Amino acid sequence: MKITTTLATIALIATTSSVSADVVVDRAISETQVLTAQKAWCEALIDISTTNSMKGQAAASELAEKVIDSAYGYQMGVVLFKPTVTVNPNTFRTTREGALSYFVGGNPAYPDDKGFALNDWTKCEIENSAILIIGNTASTMGKVHLTDKDGNVTSVDKSWQFVKDDNGQLRIVLHHSSLEFTGE
Amino acid sequence: MKITTTLATIALIATTSSVSADVVVDRAISETQVLTAQKAWCEALIDISTTNSMKGQAAASELAEKVIDSAYGYQMGVVLFKPTVTVNPNTFRTTREGALSYFVGGNPAYPDDKGFALNDWTKCEIENSAILIIGNTASTMGKVHLTDKDGNVTSVDKSWQFVKDDNGQLRIVLHHSSLEFTGE
Amino acid sequence: MKITTTLATIALIATTSSVSADVVVDRAISETQVLTAQKAWCEALIDISTTNSMKGQAAASELAEKVIDSAYGYQMGVVLFKPTVTVNPNTFRTTREGALSYFVGGNPAYPDDKGFALNDWTKCEIENSAILIIGNTASTMGKVHLTDKDGNVTSVDKSWQFVKDDNGQLRIVLHHSSLEFTGE
Amino acid sequence: MKITTTLATIALIATTSSVSADVVVDRAISETQVLTAQKAWCEALIDISTTNSMKGQAAASELAEKVIDSAYGYQMGVVLFKPTVTVNPNTFRTTREGALSYFVGGNPAYPDDKGFALNDWTKCEIENSAILIIGNTASTMGKVHLTDKDGNVTSVDKSWQFVKDDNGQLRIVLHHSSLEFTGE
Repeated sequence: MKITTTLATIALIATTSSVSADVVVDRAISETQVLTAQKAWCEALIDISTTNSMKGQAAASELAEKVIDSAYGYQMGVVLFKPTVTVNPNTFRTTREGALSYFVGGNPAYPDDKGFALNDWTKCEIENSAILIIGNTASTMGKVHLTDKDGNVTSVDKSWQFVKDDNGQLRIVLHHSSLEFTGE
Repeated sequence: MKITTTLATIALIATTSSVSADVVVDRAISETQVLTAQKAWCEALIDISTTNSMKGQAAASELAEKVIDSAYGYQMGVVLFKPTVTVNPNTFRTTREGALSYFVGGNPAYPDDKGFALNDWTKCEIENSAILIIGNTASTMGKVHLTDKDGNVTSVDKSWQFVKDDNGQLRIVLHHSSLEFTGE
Repeated sequence: MKITTTLATIALIATTSSVSADVVVDRAISETQVLTAQKAWCEALIDISTTNSMKGQAAASELAEKVIDSAYGYQMGVVLFKPTVTVNPNTFRTTREGALSYFVGGNPAYPDDKGFALNDWTKCEIENSAILIIGNTASTMGKVHLTDKDGNVTSVDKSWQFVKDDNGQLRIVLHHSSLEFTGE
Repeated sequence: MKITTTLATIALIATTSSVSADVVVDRAISETQVLTAQKAWCEALIDISTTNSMKGQAAASELAEKVIDSAYGYQMGVVLFKPTVTVNPNTFRTTREGALSYFVGGNPAYPDDKGFALNDWTKCEIENSAILIIGNTASTMGKVHLTDKDGNVTSVDKSWQFVKDDNGQLRIVLHHSSLEFTGE
């Protein structure tokens, strides 16, 4: 929760009216908070990938659970999550279990999941096309460029919608990721 | 509508992740916008009062209509408005007509209304106890000190809730004003 | 949190388009939730009053703490609370401590507080003038009629603004109460 | 704007408290409004397609402008729009001009646009995976199945985020559409 406590004194434009404020609690979402949340997602992806390389899939899975619980909003009842490379009939991962399987695999209920976060990612760059902050949500759309250990870059089109929880932390409630259309 | 278009480049903390944004549309309510809206209310009250003194009640009423239409949210269907000195059964002014009568009087449907804005106010000071910005609304609570031409000061306890309309302008959707309780 | 899981099938108006939905998580505030929260406030006031009569002020104070923690939003950083009968310089109770003192007294920092909830209230009736649900908040304004054990009725003008917390519970973030203006 | 004016009388659970409301203005987004907005999008796509077949591209373009102006939120400053088949560097259509070009083509600034709405679509079915209504926005994610005049079906993964404007109409502020990933 962003709490800004200020003793604001607004300069008087006229002598006929004035305004002052003692306590200001601003729970609106700021651009900085959005960029920080996006960056945290990138870093978490690389963390899971690195953990997998160094400590194995079990450790990576354990970390992925923590990431999902802190960065996504499954506790609100549902997250609208369309990961980059899922196939029918498991395209959408509206449950925590489905999200975990996507990131680290190993769940027989999702046989096509190979674990997207296990691809030895070493770099994650976010290039926002636009950010819209409105009411209690912030939404972003743009490219995310992922580099693996061999230097191969995968670019995806990605949308995120965030809400701020009671503790002031942004949580992803919508995440749509897709490979770039190449026109072929 | 507050549109901030920036070419933001966030400094890289690590080489493993980065984020940038081209267009940012921030429609959250800012503290500055709240203070500006409050100040505008004060100035409008004095304007109506001055207009009444110099040009008469008809001109004051015409101005009051403009103020209500631009500063309140009656077009949303209702405003929760409890003016300072209204009595049963007309305590609440949930309609535009009731608000106008309160400020400038002259409406037989509200026989007790003498026109609060016609009291020769010369000064209006807002002393916020606290401001809370949350989601798409901002709420304030505090004292408003009104001075008339003879130097008499009336202090009221006042709450306002604002929402931002499609044009980015704050509008009052709740306004509760009451004379200070003196313990007697 | 209101989670409605439905297998909705919208009747086809034409054969050219159709829409269906599997999971719907609706976190908007409903009128029923607002009325329930108001009623809970009334019942809590009477509970505290009754507890005071039967078990003493310490028990009443303990209950009041629970009520404040579950019904108000002090954990968000501030509540805009102007109780009915507070005086300068302690008019506004933006902190949990100030609210508790108002309801049950006994805090030397607020020497004028006699404990509003200790007045042997036996009945609490809410007569809303209007309710406005917009975005993530709901606001109400109207009369609250309180009856004590001797049958005396105190009517106050009261505004509440609620937000829904992460658990789906409404919390009061603004509460402005004032004695009726009598025109004298 | 959804205005529900009711004379609500809540059944008394106990004789100690009661609540009633005269005017209720509920501007929250309902599931029905979301499904209606989605269906309107489908029908508009087919309308544009049919208009193109029967009256030519100019008439289709004129209709597309009306559809964009009534169904999208470009007047808020930006729409986060990633259409199904756009390519770099014009992947995202954050402006009204870019959206129009995508639907009906003919804009030299977007040389790859062939006019997605001109593909002789005859049927549009929406299969929502989940809907999330939170605060002042509603978001949906699911499949949209489009059938052309030859019976060929194109299925896309589609996310929409809606906000309600001052007139009570839902507007699309985020639209991410992508062809299904086939695993190849």
